[in-house]
Amino acid sequence: MRFVRFGLRGSEKPGAIGADGVIRDLSEVMPALSGPNLDPDNLARLEKLTLADFPEVEPGVRLCAPISGIGKILGVGPNYPDAARLAGFKINPEPTLFAKASTAASGPTDNIEIPRMSARTDWGVELAVVIGRTAKYVSVETAMNYIAGFTIGNDITERNFQLQRSGQWMKGKSHDTFSPLGPWLVTRDEMAGYDDIILRLEVNGEEQQNGSTRDMVFKVPYLVSYISRFMRLEPGDVILTGTPGGVGLSYDPPRFLKAGDRMRLSATGLGEHNYVCVSA
Amino acid sequence: MRFVRFGLRGSEKPGAIGADGVIRDLSEVMPALSGPNLDPDNLARLEKLTLADFPEVEPGVRLCAPISGIGKILGVGPNYPDAARLAGFKINPEPTLFAKASTAASGPTDNIEIPRMSARTDWGVELAVVIGRTAKYVSVETAMNYIAGFTIGNDITERNFQLQRSGQWMKGKSHDTFSPLGPWLVTRDEMAGYDDIILRLEVNGEEQQNGSTRDMVFKVPYLVSYISRFMRLEPGDVILTGTPGGVGLSYDPPRFLKAGDRMRLSATGLGEHNYVCVSA
Repeated sequence: MRFVRFGLRGSEKPGAIGADGVIRDLSEVMPALSGPNLDPDNLARLEKLTLADFPEVEPGVRLCAPISGIGKILGVGPNYPDAARLAGFKINPEPTLFAKASTAASGPTDNIEIPRMSARTDWGVELAVVIGRTAKYVSVETAMNYIAGFTIGNDITERNFQLQRSGQWMKGKSHDTFSPLGPWLVTRDEMAGYDDIILRLEVNGEEQQNGSTRDMVFKVPYLVSYISRFMRLEPGDVILTGTPGGVGLSYDPPRFLKAGDRMRLSATGLGEHNYVCVSA
Repeated sequence: MRFVRFGLRGSEKPGAIGADGVIRDLSEVMPALSGPNLDPDNLARLEKLTLADFPEVEPGVRLCAPISGIGKILGVGPNYPDAARLAGFKINPEPTLFAKASTAASGPTDNIEIPRMSARTDWGVELAVVIGRTAKYVSVETAMNYIAGFTIGNDITERNFQLQRSGQWMKGKSHDTFSPLGPWLVTRDEMAGYDDIILRLEVNGEEQQNGSTRDMVFKVPYLVSYISRFMRLEPGDVILTGTPGGVGLSYDPPRFLKAGDRMRLSATGLGEHNYVCVSA
């Protein structure tokens, strides 16, 4: 099923989109797409509902990040060989992890803020994994059981803040709106092909990234298992699994975002992001 | 006022400790020590209450981290000259920031977990700042207005995970119980001397750290203002402001924690932590 959160900022409600593209309001049976409600067993129960029985939501309603109560947003460093090579990073023998502030989450059509003093704000379309069940020291073999579903992420980064402001990447990863998520939380059962999703990103109509999750060095089950050795994962935590080649830093000359730029992201089976950049 | 959260894990309630040392149950007037309830104006209103009017809590009750709904735990890298020199880190021209997973929070008497495969789990007593009001691009001059109060933090770190597992410190900073907080949230008005707090830490009765917050390179108002340029701070966010000299890494030979070790931390006006280390 494709779950969504819809409505004005601060009063979003949970819903789902049927095969007909109509959004239905599920708030009557699910108070929030967060915490224990994200348990895969609970989502499977909701998938048995007849969506047509629920109130129809007006078309064109704003969609926001498809989950609330996000505890952590974890990024995985270079995880696609072409991206690492082009941007001058190396693939490490184990996954590089970094934090994005959970306050950086935003929706798939919300404006993206370019921070004050920013000179190098960059993009990165990614497959985002949403955790559905507490995971600590879980094996690679069982890791998929802890996932609620998938959505599209954009790992926006201010490269100067990340790399030239005294250590630790999170300083450049955490500005408000630097982690748009959405439009849908697509449950695992609908995403059997999660390991061959085409990820695309364009800026002002020009394609910048086009890659497949099949090229990921560290795969989704491994990442969930690996991270769970270092910290407890909770329902609503998000793992951004790395970006394919074509971030702005990798072009010669490099390309960065400015106010007025439009971005469009898409991923097979996961929908689209469409937004414009504005000054913070 | 000194606010606390007390009770068994998962059913903690908010309270306060009076001058008589008696804990009073404030859950009737404050549902949780989290989010908007942490606004300094709200805390000032609660300080006018007559504590003796509220139910007395049995002595010896478990205290947990004095706030709930922690969104971010942000650490500040080397911020005391002696600590940096002894441990082989340098003080950078601007604060080094790192993330600890919010799931790492625990209480001032809860067991500390030594992670599996850990060889070098280290300590670090710190002054912890609790944010009380949304802060984004705030000035140094107004920064104190965004603080709910102070508590004691312990920035526990697995040094191999931090430094030798492929980049970004958070991997060694985020295990469950690696961020004990408490015992009290002491409001700003009672902590006029926050810039000269004696921080002490002992392991198995032997003093390892003894320093004063007066030696901090980057002071509290500057840190709040600085961080707010890179990410939005929200009520319930915690800033760990750095640790004075005497972390285990700085001794020759280095000293690290093992199951069975006892730690005691104290800070002027902020109370104590007392706990034992156990295997994860």
